Amino acid sequence: MIRGEEVLKHNTTESCWVIVHGQVYDVTNFLGDHPGGSTVVLRHAGKDVSEIFDPIHPKGILGETLTMKQILGPVDPASSITKASLPRTNVENTSPENKALPLSLCMNLDDLEMSACRVMSRRATTFITSGADSLASVRRNRKDWSKIIFRPRVLRNVARADMRRNILGKKSSLPFFIAPMGMAKLAHNEGELALVRGAVAKNIPYCVSGYSSIRHDELMACHKESGKGGFLFYQLYVAKSGEDATRQLIRTARNLGYEALFVTVDAPVIGKREEDERYKAELDYAARGAEEIVRTPQTTSNEAPPVLRGTHSYTLSWDDLRYIRDAWGASSGPVVIKGIQTAEDAKIAADMGFDGIYLSNHGGRQLDYAPSSIRTLLEIRRFCPEILSKVQIFLDGGIRRGTDIIKALCLGATAVGIGRPFNYGIALDGLAGCNKVTQLLSDEIETTMRLLGVTDLGQLGPEMVNCRALEEQLPTSLKSFHAEPRARI
Amino acid sequence: MIRGEEVLKHNTTESCWVIVHGQVYDVTNFLGDHPGGSTVVLRHAGKDVSEIFDPIHPKGILGETLTMKQILGPVDPASSITKASLPRTNVENTSPENKALPLSLCMNLDDLEMSACRVMSRRATTFITSGADSLASVRRNRKDWSKIIFRPRVLRNVARADMRRNILGKKSSLPFFIAPMGMAKLAHNEGELALVRGAVAKNIPYCVSGYSSIRHDELMACHKESGKGGFLFYQLYVAKSGEDATRQLIRTARNLGYEALFVTVDAPVIGKREEDERYKAELDYAARGAEEIVRTPQTTSNEAPPVLRGTHSYTLSWDDLRYIRDAWGASSGPVVIKGIQTAEDAKIAADMGFDGIYLSNHGGRQLDYAPSSIRTLLEIRRFCPEILSKVQIFLDGGIRRGTDIIKALCLGATAVGIGRPFNYGIALDGLAGCNKVTQLLSDEIETTMRLLGVTDLGQLGPEMVNCRALEEQLPTSLKSFHAEPRARI
Amino acid sequence: MIRGEEVLKHNTTESCWVIVHGQVYDVTNFLGDHPGGSTVVLRHAGKDVSEIFDPIHPKGILGETLTMKQILGPVDPASSITKASLPRTNVENTSPENKALPLSLCMNLDDLEMSACRVMSRRATTFITSGADSLASVRRNRKDWSKIIFRPRVLRNVARADMRRNILGKKSSLPFFIAPMGMAKLAHNEGELALVRGAVAKNIPYCVSGYSSIRHDELMACHKESGKGGFLFYQLYVAKSGEDATRQLIRTARNLGYEALFVTVDAPVIGKREEDERYKAELDYAARGAEEIVRTPQTTSNEAPPVLRGTHSYTLSWDDLRYIRDAWGASSGPVVIKGIQTAEDAKIAADMGFDGIYLSNHGGRQLDYAPSSIRTLLEIRRFCPEILSKVQIFLDGGIRRGTDIIKALCLGATAVGIGRPFNYGIALDGLAGCNKVTQLLSDEIETTMRLLGVTDLGQLGPEMVNCRALEEQLPTSLKSFHAEPRARI
Amino acid sequence: MIRGEEVLKHNTTESCWVIVHGQVYDVTNFLGDHPGGSTVVLRHAGKDVSEIFDPIHPKGILGETLTMKQILGPVDPASSITKASLPRTNVENTSPENKALPLSLCMNLDDLEMSACRVMSRRATTFITSGADSLASVRRNRKDWSKIIFRPRVLRNVARADMRRNILGKKSSLPFFIAPMGMAKLAHNEGELALVRGAVAKNIPYCVSGYSSIRHDELMACHKESGKGGFLFYQLYVAKSGEDATRQLIRTARNLGYEALFVTVDAPVIGKREEDERYKAELDYAARGAEEIVRTPQTTSNEAPPVLRGTHSYTLSWDDLRYIRDAWGASSGPVVIKGIQTAEDAKIAADMGFDGIYLSNHGGRQLDYAPSSIRTLLEIRRFCPEILSKVQIFLDGGIRRGTDIIKALCLGATAVGIGRPFNYGIALDGLAGCNKVTQLLSDEIETTMRLLGVTDLGQLGPEMVNCRALEEQLPTSLKSFHAEPRARI
Repeated sequence: MIRGEEVLKHNTTESCWVIVHGQVYDVTNFLGDHPGGSTVVLRHAGKDVSEIFDPIHPKGILGETLTMKQILGPVDPASSITKASLPRTNVENTSPENKALPLSLCMNLDDLEMSACRVMSRRATTFITSGADSLASVRRNRKDWSKIIFRPRVLRNVARADMRRNILGKKSSLPFFIAPMGMAKLAHNEGELALVRGAVAKNIPYCVSGYSSIRHDELMACHKESGKGGFLFYQLYVAKSGEDATRQLIRTARNLGYEALFVTVDAPVIGKREEDERYKAELDYAARGAEEIVRTPQTTSNEAPPVLRGTHSYTLSWDDLRYIRDAWGASSGPVVIKGIQTAEDAKIAADMGFDGIYLSNHGGRQLDYAPSSIRTLLEIRRFCPEILSKVQIFLDGGIRRGTDIIKALCLGATAVGIGRPFNYGIALDGLAGCNKVTQLLSDEIETTMRLLGVTDLGQLGPEMVNCRALEEQLPTSLKSFHAEPRARI
Repeated sequence: MIRGEEVLKHNTTESCWVIVHGQVYDVTNFLGDHPGGSTVVLRHAGKDVSEIFDPIHPKGILGETLTMKQILGPVDPASSITKASLPRTNVENTSPENKALPLSLCMNLDDLEMSACRVMSRRATTFITSGADSLASVRRNRKDWSKIIFRPRVLRNVARADMRRNILGKKSSLPFFIAPMGMAKLAHNEGELALVRGAVAKNIPYCVSGYSSIRHDELMACHKESGKGGFLFYQLYVAKSGEDATRQLIRTARNLGYEALFVTVDAPVIGKREEDERYKAELDYAARGAEEIVRTPQTTSNEAPPVLRGTHSYTLSWDDLRYIRDAWGASSGPVVIKGIQTAEDAKIAADMGFDGIYLSNHGGRQLDYAPSSIRTLLEIRRFCPEILSKVQIFLDGGIRRGTDIIKALCLGATAVGIGRPFNYGIALDGLAGCNKVTQLLSDEIETTMRLLGVTDLGQLGPEMVNCRALEEQLPTSLKSFHAEPRARI
Repeated sequence: MIRGEEVLKHNTTESCWVIVHGQVYDVTNFLGDHPGGSTVVLRHAGKDVSEIFDPIHPKGILGETLTMKQILGPVDPASSITKASLPRTNVENTSPENKALPLSLCMNLDDLEMSACRVMSRRATTFITSGADSLASVRRNRKDWSKIIFRPRVLRNVARADMRRNILGKKSSLPFFIAPMGMAKLAHNEGELALVRGAVAKNIPYCVSGYSSIRHDELMACHKESGKGGFLFYQLYVAKSGEDATRQLIRTARNLGYEALFVTVDAPVIGKREEDERYKAELDYAARGAEEIVRTPQTTSNEAPPVLRGTHSYTLSWDDLRYIRDAWGASSGPVVIKGIQTAEDAKIAADMGFDGIYLSNHGGRQLDYAPSSIRTLLEIRRFCPEILSKVQIFLDGGIRRGTDIIKALCLGATAVGIGRPFNYGIALDGLAGCNKVTQLLSDEIETTMRLLGVTDLGQLGPEMVNCRALEEQLPTSLKSFHAEPRARI
Repeated sequence: MIRGEEVLKHNTTESCWVIVHGQVYDVTNFLGDHPGGSTVVLRHAGKDVSEIFDPIHPKGILGETLTMKQILGPVDPASSITKASLPRTNVENTSPENKALPLSLCMNLDDLEMSACRVMSRRATTFITSGADSLASVRRNRKDWSKIIFRPRVLRNVARADMRRNILGKKSSLPFFIAPMGMAKLAHNEGELALVRGAVAKNIPYCVSGYSSIRHDELMACHKESGKGGFLFYQLYVAKSGEDATRQLIRTARNLGYEALFVTVDAPVIGKREEDERYKAELDYAARGAEEIVRTPQTTSNEAPPVLRGTHSYTLSWDDLRYIRDAWGASSGPVVIKGIQTAEDAKIAADMGFDGIYLSNHGGRQLDYAPSSIRTLLEIRRFCPEILSKVQIFLDGGIRRGTDIIKALCLGATAVGIGRPFNYGIALDGLAGCNKVTQLLSDEIETTMRLLGVTDLGQLGPEMVNCRALEEQLPTSLKSFHAEPRARI
């Protein structure tokens, strides 16, 4: 047994130990591979980090990640163990304005967001709400939806309102899915489990983040137990440690039974999420004072050069998709490219034969001043409309209303992803909150369909929306458009 | 005589009784047909609901709607009767800021609105002001008027300013009418009676809502008593209980002497009016706590499937207009289609031979992100200008100024409807408030005419307005335009 | 001598007396001709109105306007005389925030406005700042200037910066003039006298309002006494009492020596200036309580029909300009048409041979949603650019900066009028404040010229401004354009 | 030795003495040549001005500027010496909100600005932040960057992110430089020395202002001592005292070793910087009360006429560039024309053969409503794209983000200048603050490059940005475009 006092001495890049649930781990060699960067580990080096570790890591992950030599053994409970902790804000606040609204008084997703931000810890709020740089992408994501006006038709029999949608071969009850967002335990103890149950309850897809804070096998088990309905897809972050590690991730996902693979391509590095970085800087400042902490590029254990904010593979290219496709297997279900932001890249992905493309700027968390996904969709309509009949198109970013969803579908999207709102939902009340999100959107979609004069999502088309305000801001020509033909995979 | 304690036990969907003015009614079988949904009835089931019932229902309506078997007899006044009540807000507020402005200090309709909202109950304010979803339609309705600039001509003899307008064959003194809004008793005890008297006083039309809170025969009697002037039109909500019920409504209206029939076509379901729903949710929450109330689709006593927010007929189609036209009769006066929002539907209605089309998004209360009526009018000018000479065109939504009215007339409208402001007017002072609304608009129209250099509304034309800001946002082409020719009725 | 108690009884439309400086006048028959309407007179009927009367009327005007029979003789000073008074606001306020800034700390015209509004009476502030209806014209007037961007040229020798401008044949030191605004005594005791002196001091023109609160002969005398420099023009409001009265006004102006005649054509009726009307309504309310006062159309002593807000001639037409031109005389100096708001009317006026056209929406005080004068100028450039070389073009509305003035000149204006700011200037410090306004603008013009690379106003041209933002909002065609040729006068 | 009492008497334009560091100077004849105008000198005439003088003047400058006759000798320290002082605001403020943020908590340049403004004196804040007239240029400078949207490409190997840029033949580590801003000692005691050290530390260019508050020879010495890296350019303000003085300035700069000459052409006079002028007016008001101080045009000791705000040469023309080019010498390094604001002038400068053109409106400090530099760059792309391959293009104004810099480079800029932020940086912590500015921008550029899919600045191109919003506001044609061919120098 190792004494806490001893562990506390190992708090540097030369020797960095931490305690998690009574076990001491030597994470020195792992520092460069930590997806959140080494700084955040060093901040709590030498201490018992269980309380901080739990909400963002799957159970048992350390044991799987580290070698036996790095698992040093149990800490002596009788010794003096220093607990790492984070300041908790808001959560104990009991003034009336800071209480969550009951779900029954939440009329829309904005109510849910406002209410959830009253009860989440600052750590969770910061992670979930943050966006890149000046938040221009975040704001434009929402605003662009509001620039589209409907053209509703009247005097059509709308007794029926069929909201079912074929999504990657699955019959979803609704034309949206739960978009991948990492570390759902930050929002609620049940984390991704609540989202799996919510997907089952409403029979919609859930694309699980590669950064799930619950083990993927647990999620799959939960899915099976929860009864019929719902579909699980896997969102891949390509590992920077190389092709082998990535193949391993893919094979595991396939073997667990995920029904589609979403390959993330808009995150060669992590965006500059200032509120996130500010939160971390304030923790450092509280711990170490004004001393400037130089941000060091993240290194990796293999030979790749260190790269600033380089959490995942920053070498990923169109050619690499071939081995990813292979690792997933031809018969394992569809593959979707997630993070497309231009017509050019949409066309390449479609021409290569992928099953779907996912228009996204990562919720405004990566590049600032990125195009909203609806702008990219309009670009596709203008410059390569032929792909609309070849691939399924998904998109996300700033969707908060049934009207937003219908607008996307009118313009050719198969389905849309909803991210942050589901986190707000579970933060408020786990599965019930998750279901509330689905219910609100479903209700809005149904009413919007009838008021537009349609009874089936297949009747939606571009003639039902007026997009002039956005179309006037598209590029007038794309000179580089036909420059990059690629072979089908 | 039935004891109050007994009535109170009947408070479920299995057996639902209520007391109105001393009479006990069994409304169990009627729950699915209640236009406001069953939830609102169940909320007060078993109680004396007279106080809540009165402001929104015509006198005697229960007796007419229910069968003899459902009228259970008088309640025992000596027994313990539970009175249902609503929280009343604002109305007793006596702080100086919350007093109504005297009418003489209201310089425009915005002053009237601000003043009325100080004195109306929350129930009334909520119902009158609310709009769909995010209020985008409500806001755009008002803003679009402000995007039009005048092109005034000078040095014309404007001693005369003739504001008379032929509206559906009637000689109105002014080019606007009182638009249909339900349940005027919410705003003022006299309710629709004050509006009838106001229409007579100023010799303008009043299109009475199908949801009048005063019986239509009383309104007609009032009209006759009030002297010469004014015209009453009837706004039809097509009943979901079927064609027979609808024919009955139409025949009644015709027999009472309504001079035109306005068929509402933009309300197959009721829009998601969030402030309305929030108000109801807060009542439920106050009564029953946090327990989530699942919104159940509204069912009906006939075989139609239940439909969310399905208050009226959700099967109404162009073909049904034929029986409606028949029921009204060829010689009973004009028929107008109310709720047209696209050039396509305007053309269909005009080609079918209706007398008027009414461009409206229902005051922003139905579909969010609907086009404003002035946008639809500009669409008509671009894509089917020929109909401007075939039908009279009416429109409403966001009109608060004489300048708004003149702009609509310049672009081809025959007359415009004014809704909420008349409610604010009567809320402040019954007939006097109603007349104030008319007077303010009349005064603004007259001065605007002279400053534009016109002496007669017939001189107004598109060359007197600059609409570039709106024209740039119209669709550039309508592919679906000639797809739906229909036979004349 | 008449006793005050007796006078007080004459307070109705049947018999309306007032006391001014000890003299009793019977103004009953004059009520319909009072330019401010009869209501304002009746409000103070029977009282000594000297204090209210003085700031807005030239001395001795009652004696000139009324017949001998209407001048009833002196009031008995020993009797009980009721003094009419107005509530005075702000002016006694001594809290630090409400003190005027010293002129030396006013860096621009906005500073002057803010400072003046701290010290003027509410009556003055209301009259000077008010605008039509919703203030859309007032706001657009200012905002449109900000939409024009300069295209400055560098590396030009700018030692010289010649700001002189030929205005209607006079050599003005600067390319702007004091625009007509009535009743300057409201702002400062010296009223229009301070403005005459300011025009002389800086050698610029001053176009005196027909509603001068100082007698025109006094102004002319002041001009002669004040030394060389400055030019006085006369702004004509055509009288509603008929051609004879108008000819008389013109002859008087000509005989006094005014050097140009500006005929106001945008005021057939007065605009609905709501703050003005609110102020009057509040006075009535304070005096008479909530009783609604019905606004009666203004009548006149001749046979013309009564017209709402009909202060001046509302029959004035292009044909009437002939007698106006005649009354002024061919050799009496130029005639300018003031209040042109469309290219069509600009072309008519130019084709008729007038010397100048004055683009103006009356400072946003007449028609709401009127085009700003810069929009009208751009219309002229697009649809009838040939008139730019035939007439001098003046404009006003929202000009607060030297940059605004330079923009107008680049686009073809000869000179611009500055109105409200000169009122703010004199409100702060009479002649010194007037000169401060001129100095600030002169200073800004001079610096702007050099930074644009010009040394002479003649070098300014359309290539030095980028007006795309406004040009995109002009009408694309004017169908009615060549419809109204008229003979030259 | 001269007694302080005697000095104090010399406080007029007839005889104006000041004391600086114990020495008495007669500056009477220099008043007209003082770059800041004579008023500011007269305000403190007769007093010891050392404290005010130091932050904005290089050491020893008086001795160099004045003749021996004007250096009157030492003041008697035992006599009564009146010290001139300025009110100091903010700087002693110790309330928590007014403390600077530690650098480690500044996440972006806006944080640095906000923090610096909490600690700088009002004099410094005013000088650094102020802009021309209404601040329209200042605001548009920033806003225009936000109108450009990226078009990011995915799936490119971005392990590398090479930010190096060839700037005027020098290999800079980053594509930006420290733009010239005068009087850096106002922000921090080390003034320009901290900026030189910062340029060396990060190996970027620094273009030193002609108004350096540190002697140019000291800066050069500092550069040499600071080790390898960084480049110093010289910003020339052409002297109004004539060609000889200008030649002297240039020769000195060349001999000291400045590596490029930037000729300022947008400042024939100083812009009307109202906050600056307000600050001075308040000082005068505090000293002398409400007495209006007439702004007198600045005169010079030679025969040129006095010119309002005429601090530098106001006769500078394209032809004068010839002698400037000569004085600098053909082999002394590149010459850049700074302050170009139109395509026309850009083309002239390029055709004349200069090495670079610097698009700038002087940080919005000169002409109000000037085009932003990005608009001028877009004009060049539209009307004379051929010059993009002939000269290096620099620009500045409103750049606060790495994304702004990448946008400029996509559209053809070689590098951009960063001005005010470096002042904020040194105000907070001298060299460390300067380095923080560079580090933040470098970090943002690097992450933006990778998220755009580029590894080298040379891969940036116009296809990576969507500029529709700005392109729609460019002039559609330039009639004057080919009017001014000039010979190559």
